[in-house]
Amino acid sequence: MLSQSAAQPSRGQQLHDRIAALVPYHRSITGEGVRQTLRDLREIVPLTIHEVPSGTRVFDWTVPREWAIRDAYIKDTDGRRIVDYRESPLHVVNSSVPVHARMSLNDLRPNIHTRPDQPDVIPYRYAHYQAGWGFCMRHRDFEAMPEGMYEVRIDSAFTDGSLTYGECCIPGASEREVLFSCHVCHPALANDNLSGIAVAAELARTLMNRDLRYTYRFVFVPSTIGAITWLARNEHRTARIDHGLVLSNLGDPGGLTYKVTRNGGTDIDRAMRHLFGYGDRPGTVRPFSPYGYDERQYNSPGFQLPVGLLTRTPHEGYPEYHTSADDLNLLTPEALEDSYDFIMEVVNLVETNRTYLNTCPKGEPELGRRGLYRSVAGHSAGRTAELPHLWVLNLADGAHNLLHIAERAGLAYSLVEQAASRLVEVGLLREAVGAPPDGAAPDRGMPP
Amino acid sequence: MLSQSAAQPSRGQQLHDRIAALVPYHRSITGEGVRQTLRDLREIVPLTIHEVPSGTRVFDWTVPREWAIRDAYIKDTDGRRIVDYRESPLHVVNSSVPVHARMSLNDLRPNIHTRPDQPDVIPYRYAHYQAGWGFCMRHRDFEAMPEGMYEVRIDSAFTDGSLTYGECCIPGASEREVLFSCHVCHPALANDNLSGIAVAAELARTLMNRDLRYTYRFVFVPSTIGAITWLARNEHRTARIDHGLVLSNLGDPGGLTYKVTRNGGTDIDRAMRHLFGYGDRPGTVRPFSPYGYDERQYNSPGFQLPVGLLTRTPHEGYPEYHTSADDLNLLTPEALEDSYDFIMEVVNLVETNRTYLNTCPKGEPELGRRGLYRSVAGHSAGRTAELPHLWVLNLADGAHNLLHIAERAGLAYSLVEQAASRLVEVGLLREAVGAPPDGAAPDRGMPP
Amino acid sequence: MLSQSAAQPSRGQQLHDRIAALVPYHRSITGEGVRQTLRDLREIVPLTIHEVPSGTRVFDWTVPREWAIRDAYIKDTDGRRIVDYRESPLHVVNSSVPVHARMSLNDLRPNIHTRPDQPDVIPYRYAHYQAGWGFCMRHRDFEAMPEGMYEVRIDSAFTDGSLTYGECCIPGASEREVLFSCHVCHPALANDNLSGIAVAAELARTLMNRDLRYTYRFVFVPSTIGAITWLARNEHRTARIDHGLVLSNLGDPGGLTYKVTRNGGTDIDRAMRHLFGYGDRPGTVRPFSPYGYDERQYNSPGFQLPVGLLTRTPHEGYPEYHTSADDLNLLTPEALEDSYDFIMEVVNLVETNRTYLNTCPKGEPELGRRGLYRSVAGHSAGRTAELPHLWVLNLADGAHNLLHIAERAGLAYSLVEQAASRLVEVGLLREAVGAPPDGAAPDRGMPP
Repeated sequence: MLSQSAAQPSRGQQLHDRIAALVPYHRSITGEGVRQTLRDLREIVPLTIHEVPSGTRVFDWTVPREWAIRDAYIKDTDGRRIVDYRESPLHVVNSSVPVHARMSLNDLRPNIHTRPDQPDVIPYRYAHYQAGWGFCMRHRDFEAMPEGMYEVRIDSAFTDGSLTYGECCIPGASEREVLFSCHVCHPALANDNLSGIAVAAELARTLMNRDLRYTYRFVFVPSTIGAITWLARNEHRTARIDHGLVLSNLGDPGGLTYKVTRNGGTDIDRAMRHLFGYGDRPGTVRPFSPYGYDERQYNSPGFQLPVGLLTRTPHEGYPEYHTSADDLNLLTPEALEDSYDFIMEVVNLVETNRTYLNTCPKGEPELGRRGLYRSVAGHSAGRTAELPHLWVLNLADGAHNLLHIAERAGLAYSLVEQAASRLVEVGLLREAVGAPPDGAAPDRGMPP
Repeated sequence: MLSQSAAQPSRGQQLHDRIAALVPYHRSITGEGVRQTLRDLREIVPLTIHEVPSGTRVFDWTVPREWAIRDAYIKDTDGRRIVDYRESPLHVVNSSVPVHARMSLNDLRPNIHTRPDQPDVIPYRYAHYQAGWGFCMRHRDFEAMPEGMYEVRIDSAFTDGSLTYGECCIPGASEREVLFSCHVCHPALANDNLSGIAVAAELARTLMNRDLRYTYRFVFVPSTIGAITWLARNEHRTARIDHGLVLSNLGDPGGLTYKVTRNGGTDIDRAMRHLFGYGDRPGTVRPFSPYGYDERQYNSPGFQLPVGLLTRTPHEGYPEYHTSADDLNLLTPEALEDSYDFIMEVVNLVETNRTYLNTCPKGEPELGRRGLYRSVAGHSAGRTAELPHLWVLNLADGAHNLLHIAERAGLAYSLVEQAASRLVEVGLLREAVGAPPDGAAPDRGMPP
Repeated sequence: MLSQSAAQPSRGQQLHDRIAALVPYHRSITGEGVRQTLRDLREIVPLTIHEVPSGTRVFDWTVPREWAIRDAYIKDTDGRRIVDYRESPLHVVNSSVPVHARMSLNDLRPNIHTRPDQPDVIPYRYAHYQAGWGFCMRHRDFEAMPEGMYEVRIDSAFTDGSLTYGECCIPGASEREVLFSCHVCHPALANDNLSGIAVAAELARTLMNRDLRYTYRFVFVPSTIGAITWLARNEHRTARIDHGLVLSNLGDPGGLTYKVTRNGGTDIDRAMRHLFGYGDRPGTVRPFSPYGYDERQYNSPGFQLPVGLLTRTPHEGYPEYHTSADDLNLLTPEALEDSYDFIMEVVNLVETNRTYLNTCPKGEPELGRRGLYRSVAGHSAGRTAELPHLWVLNLADGAHNLLHIAERAGLAYSLVEQAASRLVEVGLLREAVGAPPDGAAPDRGMPP
């Protein structure tokens, strides 16, 4: 691709650059790191930043006190920093309580976390909800520590403050919503989840300038407690959500992976299966499990929202996950751009996926006089062009949206959508009145 | 088969002979060819011939003016007929407007249709609904035409007249109907659809002399416009149709093929799957598609009738389709007779496929004292004979017709039907009151 | 296993010993053999013995007269007993009418039953419901019989008496019932069905000493007529039955086999599929068929009870079936004990398989503060322990019982049940009010 102009880097490169700018902030589930991250995003999209005071009850949880950390280290007897927070925020178990002590290696050992299987990485660990502390280090360095006494210090503090999250709502013609959610609490890690944050912000930036059918809501929340906080404060709004995706791990070069919703058969699930099946970009669909990212919260039994999880390589599938190796080198501009492009395909499907009624449902309408049928017939050459029109007319009975029709016809959604557009133009289709905007009507009486 | 007497040709040979007699008529969607064809059929079955005036609105369509053609040719500069309608009606694009002109080969070329992949056949083309004209010829002849001027003549005319179709209704005990439909508009072609016409007429001839449960309706219509016309004039009657088949391509030696209805799970669909699965005659079941013969009309969303398509080789499966090679040589008496025999098996299934109630539903009834169980038991030899009786008794709960029972039991329908007959005789079964004659009750609570 | 003490034989050995003690009684569908068998069982479990007078109508059947037999033989011209009832009760067709005659071998032959394919076994045959008589003998002996005259005698009698069956009801907290049924009418045979009788009695003996949720009912009935008699006399009670098993052939060393109920999707069916799929003891699941043991009666359309059939090798799968070779040598203590153990697993599942509601259904509850989540997280090591808790919380919506959750999660029932117990302890689950005790609520909206 020689023609990429120097003045205008590719969208993928822009995404990569934005991620690079966000790496240095020391994020946790509360505190300045999240705020810095959200402030940066505000330069791209009109983000509302919410602060929820420590101590606020959110369902079964309580918003924790704000955690701040100035410094942390393990020093050997010579006063040298064996482990140094200034080198990487990963060196300290996130949300560690303060500690300052002299300890033998033996006493210290239970508070040190390493990855013996990957001796050169620093693992990422956290202890957000139970008082605890610890250090994370390279296993190779840990093995080199001689027996003896060490000075251990974590200069952290918990204070009454707030939990911070960002929200960006892009209104469409309908109050029905599409939700995108990503977590903003992981320090330093790139794929998990600066990739999700950057792609989500770019999507919002694009949609701001579009005429939209749905209202799009982007939430940037600390994982678990942030999603629960958002749900607790927006419970009345959740019934409007017709489709949603949790976004994470969108920058590695692996293929796309979609984890279905708890229901498994919602339109977002069907859309993903369809787009993976018909496009140039094969993807993997995985069953629902209540273990993972914030889809856990959106799919809890009290909500059961149609929100799936989109990643490239799922977290359990790449060795760099939750280690210092999840850095900028893991991400490629191409993968970031491909993730963005795919989600825009999803958006386009969701925007156009209406339920129609054939206005001439008895027999076929005369397509020829409307210019939609070959003038001389009898051979099969024109079949490919006519087939999408015939399928749409046949199934436009108010019980099938365009996605259902594409599934049944075994045709790419784009072909079906184009055919529907032409049929609307010539008056052979009208939108089904009272059909839900999500087109959730079942595929009645049609065995596979 | 030496014993076939000369005085009485086989049913297959009779069908072949009847088709031979119908080949010469020059059929189109209107006009004398259709009338001659229907008049001939009337010698076998009591056909009502309907004439629907040109200009009549039928749903989204208008009955076209009647097309007649006296002569057509392309003459070279020596006055020799290069293409001559008198040789074959296929030489003219069916429904061509009149034309008389001198043209260069270059100007003529867009109006000439050939099959470069089969240089020795004349293709069949039509232009029924948009003004147009053209010639169809062997590609080999076309390539031999020198540059230069040609005299082109199509001596055709469109006049106010009517669209003609035939209908034969054979009343049964019930007003519920079984529909057989075939198209009668193709000129000269044998498999498509003189085979369907001949088999349908033979079926009607047989059923006229039977005591029937269902009313059987046979319609012989020009394709598309004829089926739409029939539907428009019989809309009130369509709700009576419990099962139906469009018949076409029934004479080639390929295996039988059934294309399911739009619903895909009606009793006619299940009957076909069952009969193909259990008989000596394996067949192929294909999914529904809104492309094909007149099942397109019967399965349109405003009707959704349980009407499938039965063929031998489907139209896209044989190279002679819509060419001059679809002639008598393509058909065998054996294939025609086998098609007839199979449809009679379908008719027998439909006639006997009732929904019963076990009159002793609590525990098994005592079969032994009714002569339906071995007198000395304990070995498995008698199992095969008793099993169909036990299955029928077990599932005769008003929710399963005999076809459903055969499916569930994994037994041939004929065995199940025989068992039911004996159980009716001894008073252990009675017909379920109020069950629809089509036995459409679902297979409740029974996973596969 | 050297440690088995001589004073306390294994449960399997005890079962084998009990079967040995029951072999000598000459059982039929009525008479002393059944009474002796039930009297013996009474020493283990508190069995009620019911006597139903001959001539009593039970649905479509009539309780037959009682059959007694003193002696039977075929003597040759020298007065030697060629066939002697005193050697084995199998030698006489069960329920034979009396006969005393001199006959030629030719005349006798139709009344002699052998197994030419197994010349050294005596087959088991019966003629309970139609007047008839016959002898069963080794084919090898039959072939050695010279032509000539024979004295044939069956000294049997039919008298007004009664049909005898046993019943043992072990009450639980709920009136809802679990039914175990086995047949007690086969003479001499060991696997079919002394194994079923012995295992059922042992189960009853164990359950008598347990706190039970369900009421357990054990019925020991002559096959067919006995089950029908029980159903006729307990029709009002059958609606209480939530789960049931017919037990037979439980002592041979083959693997376990479960034949599903007529419905095929009841909880007992799902429980079997699950336990076979997740335990160390793989089993085979077979489809329902109305041919077999007394599940035929329980699954008749007037009852449709959720009662399946549990065997080891099914009757059609072992050559010794219904022959003198079905003797004690066919049974192993290990197989008998394994059958018992497995059914106790089924009982444990049924007892614990409740439907729960998550008391904090909005988002996940905070498991950490309840000691149900790792204090330092971020790695996947703890996932295995937490996953069952997360699945139970996610699906505890009143529409899934624990078995449904285990199926959906792809986790062993025992793990799911343990997780549910802990969640009940910490107050995160409560039993769904009004949920049926069988947890039959469907798996709503969840495709597989």
